[in-house]
Amino acid sequence: MASRTPSPTADRAARTSAPDRAAAGARPRRRLSVDERREQLIAVALELFSRRPPEEVSIDDIAAAAGASRPLVYHYFPGKQALYEESLRRAGQELSARFEEPMEGPLSERLYRVMGRYLDFVQSHGPGFAALLRGGSVAASAGTSAVIDEVRRAAQEQILAHLALPSPSAGLRLTVRAWIANAEITSLEWLGERSVPLEDLQLHLVQEFVASLTLTAAREPALAAELGSFFADERPEGPTGRLVQDLAGLLAVPGILDAVTALAAGTPGEPAAGAATG
Amino acid sequence: MASRTPSPTADRAARTSAPDRAAAGARPRRRLSVDERREQLIAVALELFSRRPPEEVSIDDIAAAAGASRPLVYHYFPGKQALYEESLRRAGQELSARFEEPMEGPLSERLYRVMGRYLDFVQSHGPGFAALLRGGSVAASAGTSAVIDEVRRAAQEQILAHLALPSPSAGLRLTVRAWIANAEITSLEWLGERSVPLEDLQLHLVQEFVASLTLTAAREPALAAELGSFFADERPEGPTGRLVQDLAGLLAVPGILDAVTALAAGTPGEPAAGAATG
Repeated sequence: MASRTPSPTADRAARTSAPDRAAAGARPRRRLSVDERREQLIAVALELFSRRPPEEVSIDDIAAAAGASRPLVYHYFPGKQALYEESLRRAGQELSARFEEPMEGPLSERLYRVMGRYLDFVQSHGPGFAALLRGGSVAASAGTSAVIDEVRRAAQEQILAHLALPSPSAGLRLTVRAWIANAEITSLEWLGERSVPLEDLQLHLVQEFVASLTLTAAREPALAAELGSFFADERPEGPTGRLVQDLAGLLAVPGILDAVTALAAGTPGEPAAGAATG
Repeated sequence: MASRTPSPTADRAARTSAPDRAAAGARPRRRLSVDERREQLIAVALELFSRRPPEEVSIDDIAAAAGASRPLVYHYFPGKQALYEESLRRAGQELSARFEEPMEGPLSERLYRVMGRYLDFVQSHGPGFAALLRGGSVAASAGTSAVIDEVRRAAQEQILAHLALPSPSAGLRLTVRAWIANAEITSLEWLGERSVPLEDLQLHLVQEFVASLTLTAAREPALAAELGSFFADERPEGPTGRLVQDLAGLLAVPGILDAVTALAAGTPGEPAAGAATG
């Protein structure tokens, strides 16, 4: 496992990845170079700011966790806000790196893997940055906004790259951007309540993307022409296959098939009363 | 039309509704009561803050637009931030009032009317508050966050009230919350680019809600049992009817029906190459 140092900070550090552990001061007294020390302070700050809102993290906490003195921290960073923004920038880079996925296999399975890594990130770094993403954090600034926007843009570009369309329409770009907002809000709300298993969220978000893509295609003939090969690449056991099966199952629920058929035919449906007894 | 006073402020005021015009100082020299003056200052501030980001509106601008002196404004409000938060609060109340809709007729048509009023609000007040909603506004504070959260909560409660389910699940609440985020992001992005007609956005957002509701029902049997009566109440010419017709049209695009049928049957689809020629 991790270092046995019995401090609360080491406990927190033990829950992070190996590179974080090394940087987070398991051997605080080793002489560090200027670059190493700077990186270590950022890693320690990222660890603390990931777990707690910025107002609950002091420069003293960071110095203690880094095995450094308060003046030494100030030697590297003008203040807490600068360290906060730098840790957010690192978190943003780490998150953006998780979006990268080989251009192979069914699209919904690629997105499913990306969402697994994204939700893992949300679990490990989300609690501290949640207030910032929700808006109204005391630490919000033009700097933090720029970082968040950059991550959203990276996510959008990755998805569009995987869709591999010659020229994505404004409507499709908007669909992707709105789905990213959906993923953000859904995972932030999940952090607060954890009311469903994380794997369910992972599947649902991917399926909502497939649904949004299909809806966009329903109004954009150029995208509709690509949709056949998208569906043909999917597998029955993947997120899209399971979505199609779930929707087919829905049509077996009393009342739904009749009502949907009537709507498709352009004829008024039956009166609602009693249609949903089942 | 409006007052003929040839000032830029009056020009801006001329583009607002009649009650705003009256408050915005068409007759600046009439003696106002304490309450009237306070209301007038808020109305003028709301007008200015709706058009421009807060950093581009000064207390002098507000005083001039209200036909008041700078000290008089300070007599009522401690500073620009307080006036900004008060105007945002009024904007929030106005927006929440627009969510109210009689509990009559097909659900998607009710939501369509609400979205018409919402998008109208976005057009008239959005430009100034966009930075705040996107995050990173210099005027963001715990106060502005509370107002925005309250509006989101009001929207969520209204939608759940219209769905009229005995006890909405955590999953459904999350679906509604995520769709509200979708509507926010989509309309904010639209403000920047205005790349599609506003009526299209109004229709698409409602249809995306219907799709999200359907997806949630596909994994929640209790909601699925209600979905038949929801669809049976809808009309072919309404947003849901048009969505069903568009999706039916999509199945006529070469390759899509075969691929979807294969996924539904749980059998692997045909190879993608050539499946989307059309």
